[in-house]
Amino acid sequence: MAQNIYDNPDFFSGYSQLPRQVHGLEAAPEWPAIRAMLPELTGKHVADLGCGFGWASRWMRAQGAVSVLGVDLSQNMIARAKADTSDPTIEYLIADLATLELPEAAFNLVYSALSFHYVADFQRLTRMIHKALVPAGDLVFTAEHPIFMAAAHPHWITDEDGRKTWPVNRYSLEGERRTDWFAKGVLKYHRTLGTTLTTLIDAGFESRRVEEFAPTREQIERLPELAEELERPMMLLVSARKTERR
Amino acid sequence: MAQNIYDNPDFFSGYSQLPRQVHGLEAAPEWPAIRAMLPELTGKHVADLGCGFGWASRWMRAQGAVSVLGVDLSQNMIARAKADTSDPTIEYLIADLATLELPEAAFNLVYSALSFHYVADFQRLTRMIHKALVPAGDLVFTAEHPIFMAAAHPHWITDEDGRKTWPVNRYSLEGERRTDWFAKGVLKYHRTLGTTLTTLIDAGFESRRVEEFAPTREQIERLPELAEELERPMMLLVSARKTERR
Repeated sequence: MAQNIYDNPDFFSGYSQLPRQVHGLEAAPEWPAIRAMLPELTGKHVADLGCGFGWASRWMRAQGAVSVLGVDLSQNMIARAKADTSDPTIEYLIADLATLELPEAAFNLVYSALSFHYVADFQRLTRMIHKALVPAGDLVFTAEHPIFMAAAHPHWITDEDGRKTWPVNRYSLEGERRTDWFAKGVLKYHRTLGTTLTTLIDAGFESRRVEEFAPTREQIERLPELAEELERPMMLLVSARKTERR
Repeated sequence: MAQNIYDNPDFFSGYSQLPRQVHGLEAAPEWPAIRAMLPELTGKHVADLGCGFGWASRWMRAQGAVSVLGVDLSQNMIARAKADTSDPTIEYLIADLATLELPEAAFNLVYSALSFHYVADFQRLTRMIHKALVPAGDLVFTAEHPIFMAAAHPHWITDEDGRKTWPVNRYSLEGERRTDWFAKGVLKYHRTLGTTLTTLIDAGFESRRVEEFAPTREQIERLPELAEELERPMMLLVSARKTERR
């Protein structure tokens, strides 16, 4: 079972104040890149795994999705998501992605933002999603990048010229990583990029886009602290399409 | 045009003494992983891009390939490759991968080991290879991993616990990287993993396997210095199949 850190009061109160939680999708610098990866939404049935406050669920509905199922482990998040909409075609469900079972062939798009790195068994998750998608259905997700997650002490250092530098070690040693982020010992699961992509292929997905978020020049002009994101990728963005299982 | 460092006498004399140059494929720790990615070779027409001394070209012929074209920029390498075989079905060609044109639909497999990071224009290269392959033909290649190449000063450092650590910076700043390796200023081209994989997809390839070489426990027992390769990946291994251009 995934650690339910989002219902830890200290974590939740800090996390809730992140710009992207207060202001929604437009406050997430990776959002334009994600949006460009999404298929046309009109008439689609969508699942939003790790939906949090439901910002993306509501956006997809506004873009023409006919139904959206938002799933999150956190009671706090789902309570707030439910409070923020009265749209009966958006349904919210409290469930753990580690054990979630979705109905078969029920979705045209499964979307997930920054949640898959909390799931230990990626093979189980991708197979479940594959079954839940219609033929040629899309999976679009973001996750913390393995370069960002791998090290024993993942924090900025400087190189001999004083340049901001990110340490990588334990890259090929997959599994639990604990970090302090709004609370002590937040539990995540490190997987190599090779494992993530090959697991998707083996589950029956064809990758259509693999990106590593980097801010644009315009974004850096507006928000200069984003420049450090050029030094190492924090997020992996993947768009994949259901084909047949190998 | 790619820098022809392999015909620099200092470089060549150092490089020629690497175990994998002296003893061949079995001395390359990533070889078992590459071999597992290769298709059945019997009856196949193969191109080996950056063939060096021709170890892989000869091996593929021995596995049943009916013809092998080995291509390398280095006159030194090709002279030695030619001297090491009298097999008339293995042809060697001195050419720059940056400008190489192969005949259309002529190969079942294009193979390349540790050469693509010398090529500036990966889009041109992948499109040329796509045309040179028969339908459903395979591209299997290894290249230096972007984690290994990105930093301004790519060398081991230690973290606060004394653990071997690899610095990453400039990851999203693609382009030239110069390092000292048997000679000063060896010129390579850094690309993100996202760029490599998405360029392949756009050229009309479907990824079948994406791996980041890590030694097995047995390999580390035999050669303990390989353990450091668990800390960060040095090589990217990709197996892709020709589909249609998007």
